[in-house]
Amino acid sequence: MSTNASEHLAKAPIIGIVMGSDSDWPTMQGAATTLEQFSIPFEARVVSAHRMPEDMLAYGREASGRGLQAIIAGAGGAAHLPGMLASVTVLPVIGVPVALKHLEGMDSLLSIVQMPAGVPVATVSIGNSTNAALLALRILATGSDEQGKRLRKELAEYQVSLRQTAIDKGKALEDLRHDA
Amino acid sequence: MSTNASEHLAKAPIIGIVMGSDSDWPTMQGAATTLEQFSIPFEARVVSAHRMPEDMLAYGREASGRGLQAIIAGAGGAAHLPGMLASVTVLPVIGVPVALKHLEGMDSLLSIVQMPAGVPVATVSIGNSTNAALLALRILATGSDEQGKRLRKELAEYQVSLRQTAIDKGKALEDLRHDA
Amino acid sequence: MSTNASEHLAKAPIIGIVMGSDSDWPTMQGAATTLEQFSIPFEARVVSAHRMPEDMLAYGREASGRGLQAIIAGAGGAAHLPGMLASVTVLPVIGVPVALKHLEGMDSLLSIVQMPAGVPVATVSIGNSTNAALLALRILATGSDEQGKRLRKELAEYQVSLRQTAIDKGKALEDLRHDA
Amino acid sequence: MSTNASEHLAKAPIIGIVMGSDSDWPTMQGAATTLEQFSIPFEARVVSAHRMPEDMLAYGREASGRGLQAIIAGAGGAAHLPGMLASVTVLPVIGVPVALKHLEGMDSLLSIVQMPAGVPVATVSIGNSTNAALLALRILATGSDEQGKRLRKELAEYQVSLRQTAIDKGKALEDLRHDA
Amino acid sequence: MSTNASEHLAKAPIIGIVMGSDSDWPTMQGAATTLEQFSIPFEARVVSAHRMPEDMLAYGREASGRGLQAIIAGAGGAAHLPGMLASVTVLPVIGVPVALKHLEGMDSLLSIVQMPAGVPVATVSIGNSTNAALLALRILATGSDEQGKRLRKELAEYQVSLRQTAIDKGKALEDLRHDA
Amino acid sequence: MSTNASEHLAKAPIIGIVMGSDSDWPTMQGAATTLEQFSIPFEARVVSAHRMPEDMLAYGREASGRGLQAIIAGAGGAAHLPGMLASVTVLPVIGVPVALKHLEGMDSLLSIVQMPAGVPVATVSIGNSTNAALLALRILATGSDEQGKRLRKELAEYQVSLRQTAIDKGKALEDLRHDA
Amino acid sequence: MSTNASEHLAKAPIIGIVMGSDSDWPTMQGAATTLEQFSIPFEARVVSAHRMPEDMLAYGREASGRGLQAIIAGAGGAAHLPGMLASVTVLPVIGVPVALKHLEGMDSLLSIVQMPAGVPVATVSIGNSTNAALLALRILATGSDEQGKRLRKELAEYQVSLRQTAIDKGKALEDLRHDA
Amino acid sequence: MSTNASEHLAKAPIIGIVMGSDSDWPTMQGAATTLEQFSIPFEARVVSAHRMPEDMLAYGREASGRGLQAIIAGAGGAAHLPGMLASVTVLPVIGVPVALKHLEGMDSLLSIVQMPAGVPVATVSIGNSTNAALLALRILATGSDEQGKRLRKELAEYQVSLRQTAIDKGKALEDLRHDA
Repeated sequence: MSTNASEHLAKAPIIGIVMGSDSDWPTMQGAATTLEQFSIPFEARVVSAHRMPEDMLAYGREASGRGLQAIIAGAGGAAHLPGMLASVTVLPVIGVPVALKHLEGMDSLLSIVQMPAGVPVATVSIGNSTNAALLALRILATGSDEQGKRLRKELAEYQVSLRQTAIDKGKALEDLRHDA
Repeated sequence: MSTNASEHLAKAPIIGIVMGSDSDWPTMQGAATTLEQFSIPFEARVVSAHRMPEDMLAYGREASGRGLQAIIAGAGGAAHLPGMLASVTVLPVIGVPVALKHLEGMDSLLSIVQMPAGVPVATVSIGNSTNAALLALRILATGSDEQGKRLRKELAEYQVSLRQTAIDKGKALEDLRHDA
Repeated sequence: MSTNASEHLAKAPIIGIVMGSDSDWPTMQGAATTLEQFSIPFEARVVSAHRMPEDMLAYGREASGRGLQAIIAGAGGAAHLPGMLASVTVLPVIGVPVALKHLEGMDSLLSIVQMPAGVPVATVSIGNSTNAALLALRILATGSDEQGKRLRKELAEYQVSLRQTAIDKGKALEDLRHDA
Repeated sequence: MSTNASEHLAKAPIIGIVMGSDSDWPTMQGAATTLEQFSIPFEARVVSAHRMPEDMLAYGREASGRGLQAIIAGAGGAAHLPGMLASVTVLPVIGVPVALKHLEGMDSLLSIVQMPAGVPVATVSIGNSTNAALLALRILATGSDEQGKRLRKELAEYQVSLRQTAIDKGKALEDLRHDA
Repeated sequence: MSTNASEHLAKAPIIGIVMGSDSDWPTMQGAATTLEQFSIPFEARVVSAHRMPEDMLAYGREASGRGLQAIIAGAGGAAHLPGMLASVTVLPVIGVPVALKHLEGMDSLLSIVQMPAGVPVATVSIGNSTNAALLALRILATGSDEQGKRLRKELAEYQVSLRQTAIDKGKALEDLRHDA
Repeated sequence: MSTNASEHLAKAPIIGIVMGSDSDWPTMQGAATTLEQFSIPFEARVVSAHRMPEDMLAYGREASGRGLQAIIAGAGGAAHLPGMLASVTVLPVIGVPVALKHLEGMDSLLSIVQMPAGVPVATVSIGNSTNAALLALRILATGSDEQGKRLRKELAEYQVSLRQTAIDKGKALEDLRHDA
Repeated sequence: MSTNASEHLAKAPIIGIVMGSDSDWPTMQGAATTLEQFSIPFEARVVSAHRMPEDMLAYGREASGRGLQAIIAGAGGAAHLPGMLASVTVLPVIGVPVALKHLEGMDSLLSIVQMPAGVPVATVSIGNSTNAALLALRILATGSDEQGKRLRKELAEYQVSLRQTAIDKGKALEDLRHDA
Repeated sequence: MSTNASEHLAKAPIIGIVMGSDSDWPTMQGAATTLEQFSIPFEARVVSAHRMPEDMLAYGREASGRGLQAIIAGAGGAAHLPGMLASVTVLPVIGVPVALKHLEGMDSLLSIVQMPAGVPVATVSIGNSTNAALLALRILATGSDEQGKRLRKELAEYQVSLRQTAIDKGKALEDLRHDA
């Protein structure tokens, strides 16, 4: 991890990235990278709904009090982590369906998104922890404080950069075609 | 409820039938009816994973100590109840996928059955709480006590009666055809 | 609409509820009801991605400037509204998959949730606009202002009331069973 | 690219091949190859619905005025490009579902084909940009001009050649079997 | 049928609407209505791939010679009609998946859209014959003749009217809400 | 049942129509009707794989010896009847997936068709017992005896009648349209 | 191919194995191998529904007259070959769904099995051409001639051998476990 | 196999692990390993529903009499083994869906779980034989004998160890991140 990243990890985290196992890290890493890009302090934890249910509920219950402002939770298969966390916090919980060996992540997606009325989980696309982080950033950007202001500006710039990248890829396409 | 049913409900329940809402009762009722047929005392409770998570874990944690020998849990959509209960008890947990308005119960099925290694849920067919009860009875029937003995005998008789019913339906079919 | 509702509609809306057609209203109404319960001023609009694309992009572009803090967008079939809005605003966009005549909402769900990296949509369960509103409220509740404070308190109370309702339903279940 | 191809690219394009990213090029290349085979000038562009929405709408709006007669749009996941283009042009828009890492292209297919009444997208099979080009050629072949006439003739010859290839493959099958 | 409709039916049809059975008519009727709105002469026929295969191929083979410029083919289940027609004509063939009693039209959709390279079918959404007609109109609108010119103009006006309708529905939504 | 039907039921049956329950009869009736139309003697029986497994295997084992030449087996859900019968007979077994309350027959279809190498089941479309009977008739029609000859002729006539019906339906379509 | 195989290929084929392309041969080869094992003369042909529709129909129409007694047809994607052949012959047509690059063969399965009433296709499991051949053999085994007699005996022996193989695999399992 | 494992295999087995083929062993091995960890004697057998149906039923019928207390049955595709065994025994039968080459195990899952009322199969997640063993252990742990007592204790310790492992993985995650 870069010095820069370490630095702002020293600050109190305001986003929690949790996952059921360290095997989910390759999928969830994109969330960490994205939050670092926007200089948002976060923590990354293994919090398993099925293997440490009490700790998991405690994590959810205490999240707001510890200063977290949103939770990003990745889980696969019968993915209960995001929904259970959402049941014990009033923070926005963002669910990332992790595709396991079978079913292409469809089980993970349905287990996360199909929550009953009363307990919402903000679900993003299968395996897309980058979008989970961007959603967390959009949430933080609604704040009326300095950070909110900064993020609104930076997210707007990010959208501009997405456009520029797409345009550059269009040029790359021209090259691809001329090389063919 | 028949006097007969009330009677054995007076006994300490050994099976817990739980569901996330009373709206699941029409689906879960078959479990109660079946347990009554085999004179097994049970309790039926609303225990919502998402609306009362702490109570839910407490229910699971205390189930064995209170004398329950298996839990039947019905849930729909992002159905977390059976799996979460299974994470805090060593009792067999039997999951009944309840079909909601959309997706024909496929979301419920996958959310219940696709549990990670370590925390099994015994899943039965969509909406089939009768089979959940029969599975609970088969579990009780493995016991070396009197109850186990009685249930082995009664389940064997039940299988005989299933055959007889099928044969009788065959005769009904003849009638249907001659009426056509 | 109740006087109470009209009143806070008089205030500048901070949540936009948009949908492709007035035929989506029965599905989206739950969002409005929920926001009213929490006294959050909102607007409800027909904004069709396919029938008024320019207006739709304009709506998204101007949303933040007009004071909106989140957008709830319902759409069915090839549901492009939430994702397209998300591409022109940095506000959190919450997508509600609306089930159409065929496919049980699966097409709507996938069209909304499977967004590419860079442009997140916070997707809730099929037809569940209530959860979309609750998610918007959780987002507003992250604010450091008075409103954020109030909503954190009220959402916590709401979670308590969910638990109480579940417990009451448990009693209703007892009645159901005794009436059977 | 062959000199021959470069040549007719020099002519004003009448078909636009667009895609959300240059990573779609391996899938979309078949469209280019096929149009080249039939000597139809085309352009290939990265036009991302989500990363450059305004440019994307502008592309669609101006397509007809610039002389395009059909647009082939490839997209994956929550694939909004074909449908959004179709909403701002009266040209036929042909959608190619691009399969991403998960879900085998089913999300792409449904996001493209399930358009609401009023805004049609001509959808072809998953990943089949060759067929998108052939459909574009069939559209051009309805023209009463010289090009239409030529294409009708050449497409009929192409159908004859498909038959011949199938027959030749039948012979190859004989060889395969004798080698076995 | 209105006099107006009868009139232009008297003209030589340029679009063929075909379906496997008259039971598909309720689904396919939208195509006829739409073509009538744009004063395009068409024919509507029962042409079953499985019950009259030779006639079906003959229909396809002769379509262009008889002056048709596109074929709209509706079919359900193992829906072979659109693809088989496409194999014997160079006209654009537009496939409408008709949902049957089971599977919500998913079988129809896949049977129509998943054509092999070489033989494209322009597939529209399940049951959406209106879009099939609009696609046919967009194809006709590519023509350099008077009809093409007229259709380009009318389709552009139609897009404007779609927008107006959406705006009007927005007002209806206001009414709905105030009545609630 | 018509006298005619009763008559040939008096003859030794050569086709067995079996199903797991008399509740499958509405689905399976089409097979009986079709066999009657072609004057093929058959029997219809309730033979449940799960409720009378030994009888079921006995049925399969003895089928050929009793003069049956094919078995039509309808089953729903975890549909094991067709496959299990196929494992104890060398007769062709034709499986009819019966749609139950959930999943639109997809579970039934997969449970019947996805047999392992070695034990084939000839599967027809969901709920289509008419096609099961027609397939049985095609099998009988391969015989070199009088019956085979008759059936080849009658099935050919049936195909002609299918065409005629389709043509008549085409005329009905004209009427439908003129009434509209 | 073994001399033995070549020999009986010299005899007039009674089973036709057809497929849309020589790329289907690896999937369809199992049918050929199985028929050879039972000394049934067959032919293997590329007969594409979409690339040579007239030849395809001719193949179906003439199959019975040329002495074929059943047709095995493999196809993938929008798989029309088995159903179209079935529409022009009264021979039993056995469909083998070939899995293509996407969708795991689900499109192929539905396109083959979901035939409308009147035109049956005997569908086997995805990619399982061995079962298609075994089904053809079961059909031939219904014959009252010498061949039918021989096949009934040999198929019964084959079932015995399947059992023996399974038993032997059980022993192999013991070895596997002791090696572990 | 370890001496330890061999030893308790010498004891009379109380769990039967059965599968249709030795090719299922890699999937089913987890069940054996888990039972060994808990010192429960078991047997592992190839018992094919389709290749040795009579032996299979005999296995089920005799299982209880031979001292088995539960059966773990793995099967793929049209997976009939668990359900058929459940029809001839009153022991709990635990089904493990084995994923085959196509369909990601969805066919196996539905064929196993969707059993009709009367004959339950306790289904676990696709390919998860470890959970099947853990479910068998939970069943044995309901016993009032010494073994039951021991297993209740050991399963509780196992749950504690799952938690510890999850916590350790959390630390591993920290390392992963610092190495990145």
